[in-house]
Amino acid sequence: MQIARVVGTVVATQKHSAFDGAKLLLVQLLALDDTPRGPALLAVDALGAGVHEKVLIVMEGRAAGQALGRTMAPVDAAIVGIVDTVDLEA
Amino acid sequence: MQIARVVGTVVATQKHSAFDGAKLLLVQLLALDDTPRGPALLAVDALGAGVHEKVLIVMEGRAAGQALGRTMAPVDAAIVGIVDTVDLEA
Amino acid sequence: MQIARVVGTVVATQKHSAFDGAKLLLVQLLALDDTPRGPALLAVDALGAGVHEKVLIVMEGRAAGQALGRTMAPVDAAIVGIVDTVDLEA
Amino acid sequence: MQIARVVGTVVATQKHSAFDGAKLLLVQLLALDDTPRGPALLAVDALGAGVHEKVLIVMEGRAAGQALGRTMAPVDAAIVGIVDTVDLEA
Amino acid sequence: MQIARVVGTVVATQKHSAFDGAKLLLVQLLALDDTPRGPALLAVDALGAGVHEKVLIVMEGRAAGQALGRTMAPVDAAIVGIVDTVDLEA
Repeated sequence: MQIARVVGTVVATQKHSAFDGAKLLLVQLLALDDTPRGPALLAVDALGAGVHEKVLIVMEGRAAGQALGRTMAPVDAAIVGIVDTVDLEA
Repeated sequence: MQIARVVGTVVATQKHSAFDGAKLLLVQLLALDDTPRGPALLAVDALGAGVHEKVLIVMEGRAAGQALGRTMAPVDAAIVGIVDTVDLEA
Repeated sequence: MQIARVVGTVVATQKHSAFDGAKLLLVQLLALDDTPRGPALLAVDALGAGVHEKVLIVMEGRAAGQALGRTMAPVDAAIVGIVDTVDLEA
Repeated sequence: MQIARVVGTVVATQKHSAFDGAKLLLVQLLALDDTPRGPALLAVDALGAGVHEKVLIVMEGRAAGQALGRTMAPVDAAIVGIVDTVDLEA
Repeated sequence: MQIARVVGTVVATQKHSAFDGAKLLLVQLLALDDTPRGPALLAVDALGAGVHEKVLIVMEGRAAGQALGRTMAPVDAAIVGIVDTVDLEA
């Protein structure tokens, strides 16, 4: 799993029916010092995460489908947690 | 999922039978400012996307097969949505 | 599998129910000379690994779910071993 | 899927029995201008592709196994098409 | 599949039970000119490969589990062949 921040939303009227009712959020992966790393990507959200929240992302199709509760959905990334704290022990 | 633009098409007469009738589009992944990032790749299209359209790509075999409605197809990327708007909240 | 060091923990009160009771550890992948490589990531732990321990990480959803003993869990990385020694033959 | 060129062959007498009779080709991924990109890799071939041919590669285990017609085979890349033309619309 | 050289071994007394009796080898991916590329990683070995041997690696969980003959094992890389020759046709 990776830590990311929700940075936006995407609207796609025409989409695979498995996405009906699913929220698509634009997320930015973060380094440990909370700076962005890599490109932004889209994740389905089954937890009600909001923009600016720090979240846990699972990036794999089987896992993302499980997160959405739709094992046959064509998804490859999902929000599976909302981060309270990260404790880094140097 | 990733945001990409359809940039071309590929013709392959000799191919795995699971691709019969499936459209193969050449897509270019985009950064949030719509500049290209990474190499172009091929995705199967089950939505009727056209060249120049901005689309949602799922990049994983299980998910791509689901998108095509052929769970046993040897595919690893598929178009699953056509993007209307991307709202980035800074 | 990859070699990593446990460098911290993450608390996420609101998360997918499949994570209930699972420990989420922050791990840093290591090069052969034990220097960090790449970003830190989160792995579920089914072995009771502690901070600072060197561990084996499996990075794939199906495999990580197996490691957790919950094949339907939306996870993509897991700790599957605690490293005693690495013998590199030049 | 990715576009690649077949650049060689590999002989491995001692191998997993699922590879018996399967052809292992060395392929080089290509950029849109046909220059090489990334390292060469090995793909199983179920289409009879020849050296120097431009091919479609699927890079994922489930999909590659489907391409070979052996869903339980331990493979992660397969040739699934032979490219006739690539039409890039600028 | 990728070409790699076996460069060492790893001992992990405390590990997931699916690894009992499985050999864990440290492998270094190779470029076509046999120079190392990328970080070393760990692969399960079901073929009896030795240190210094050039091997074929499959890097994907489903495939690696098949290679080990334990489809439920939490593994993501396996040795599936021992390379005799690589013929690169320029």
